[in-house]
Amino acid sequence: MTGRTNRQIALARRPLGDIAADDFRHRAVPVRDLQPGEFLVQNRWLSIDPYMRVRMNEARSYAPPQPLDQVMGGTTAGDVIASNHPCFAEGDRVVGLGGWQLYAIDSGAGFVRVETSAVPLQAYLGVAGMPGMTAWYGIRHIIRPKSGETIVVSAASGAVGSVAGQLSKQAGCRVIGIAGGPEKCRHVVDDLGLDACIDHKAGNLDIQLAAAAADGIDGYFDNVGGAVLDAVMRRLNTFARVAVCGQISGGYDTTPLPLADTSMLLTARLVMQGFIISDHRDLWPAARAELVRLVAERRLVYRETIAEGLDAAPTALINVLKGANLGKQLVRLS
Amino acid sequence: MTGRTNRQIALARRPLGDIAADDFRHRAVPVRDLQPGEFLVQNRWLSIDPYMRVRMNEARSYAPPQPLDQVMGGTTAGDVIASNHPCFAEGDRVVGLGGWQLYAIDSGAGFVRVETSAVPLQAYLGVAGMPGMTAWYGIRHIIRPKSGETIVVSAASGAVGSVAGQLSKQAGCRVIGIAGGPEKCRHVVDDLGLDACIDHKAGNLDIQLAAAAADGIDGYFDNVGGAVLDAVMRRLNTFARVAVCGQISGGYDTTPLPLADTSMLLTARLVMQGFIISDHRDLWPAARAELVRLVAERRLVYRETIAEGLDAAPTALINVLKGANLGKQLVRLS
Repeated sequence: MTGRTNRQIALARRPLGDIAADDFRHRAVPVRDLQPGEFLVQNRWLSIDPYMRVRMNEARSYAPPQPLDQVMGGTTAGDVIASNHPCFAEGDRVVGLGGWQLYAIDSGAGFVRVETSAVPLQAYLGVAGMPGMTAWYGIRHIIRPKSGETIVVSAASGAVGSVAGQLSKQAGCRVIGIAGGPEKCRHVVDDLGLDACIDHKAGNLDIQLAAAAADGIDGYFDNVGGAVLDAVMRRLNTFARVAVCGQISGGYDTTPLPLADTSMLLTARLVMQGFIISDHRDLWPAARAELVRLVAERRLVYRETIAEGLDAAPTALINVLKGANLGKQLVRLS
Repeated sequence: MTGRTNRQIALARRPLGDIAADDFRHRAVPVRDLQPGEFLVQNRWLSIDPYMRVRMNEARSYAPPQPLDQVMGGTTAGDVIASNHPCFAEGDRVVGLGGWQLYAIDSGAGFVRVETSAVPLQAYLGVAGMPGMTAWYGIRHIIRPKSGETIVVSAASGAVGSVAGQLSKQAGCRVIGIAGGPEKCRHVVDDLGLDACIDHKAGNLDIQLAAAAADGIDGYFDNVGGAVLDAVMRRLNTFARVAVCGQISGGYDTTPLPLADTSMLLTARLVMQGFIISDHRDLWPAARAELVRLVAERRLVYRETIAEGLDAAPTALINVLKGANLGKQLVRLS
């Protein structure tokens, strides 16, 4: 044994509806010795993402369910602190499937080494990680915005939406964010540089959209589904593209999330496409390199909401599902 | 004046909900003399299509509304019986925007000459016309079926669905039709050669679909929307494609047609795409040539439901909207 103690958080039970702190179990176990070909990662940062709620359901979704009584899955960024692996050395900075725990042992399949001279380590969990690449794929491969078009992004202040909005601006579009509350909306316009931001909590979504998108909407990067999608649908232009990235308005609790009216699909000859970035791993190296470059050049800005310590992870996830975070939700582990 | 009398049917009023015979006005007007560059078409066949109901609404859809008190728009097949046009001669057989009337005068933009040695004239209104090409586009350009996949086609005995189903069979797929009533279902399996046909009027759509598509569904050619779309959605496989061609279950009367649950869009990473064949005129010559060849080779079979005489056109449209036709609904004009 290494003498180190690994604190972990496991899934205690499958929630129905909203999740609560006692859906999780906190525990401490010794860190075992490394086998040949293994290395030990000290997790520094844990990424908190909405898909974690999907995996807490029993039903198979785009990812298999999180097994009960096992460490919650999740992406972490950390440091290799011991290694029996030929390709990973002590001191390497890595990102991978570290889980909700302080230490992870891996044999090379679960982590990749990252370069932190241009961007900080935790950026690989956000703007230059899965959320950033998700935005990149949805904009570049599904919406494909053309200069002069109007693009709408929901959850526009979040880890994914903030990148989707900025990439659309760089394509020469008029870009309208949708976010919850005046603070987020101010951030979307003032910091992210979008042309307008609609507060979906302020009501009158149709009227706000009509004012902000007087010429209609050519592309919609949807993180939320539900009533916001319904309202955007009504203003879509012919041949508009809808990238369905998330449906957080439904809470991911397996209750159906309807669409009020499908007639625009036909009338406007829409393309609606759901996507998951893990289907497109072949594109990750190029996407990540571009996102890192844009961050280093300060052409892509981002915010983080940081929870302190592993024990704060459940509350951080609860907050993300309520939309209480601004930008990327992280947990600082050590 | 030519001495001929043109009987016409115009739109008398915009219907709310179901249409009725007195939404139309029948009238007789003289056929005027031809100007230089014009030719006179005697319409032989009138195509009756669901989109006509869409155009009876005031709201702009994918086509502009049918103007009140003007001849109902529609595609006809007929003969040139007089011509002052250098490219059209008496005796030419033509297909084009002839409208709900016995004669049409055109200057060349509205009609094309067709070759009736391999297929009969009226086939250019159905299997080798707009409905056939609609099926061709949805299958070849949106669903793109791969051998071994399972494809579902709704309104499978109709003018569009019957071609979509047969093209999917030719691609090496297991193909399941959905139609209303045992007679249509028998036709779909026995005559069109599909592997199975589900009677949506028989209830238990989910159970019938589960039995017929035990391995899930990879592509859905949707002519109907509504509850049938909901049921098919629940059985779609990952990366399935949904070609949204029609939504006749909603009656095209401007009432919203909801989707019960959008979560499969994300879970299964679906593509849903609405399309209108008139957006793809560049592909018509190749599509039409292929469809004519398949019909001539008896690899594509089709049925017609024929109403006799112009005065029967309103009832024919009412019947199409109720699903009372089998195959292509035509009106024989002369």
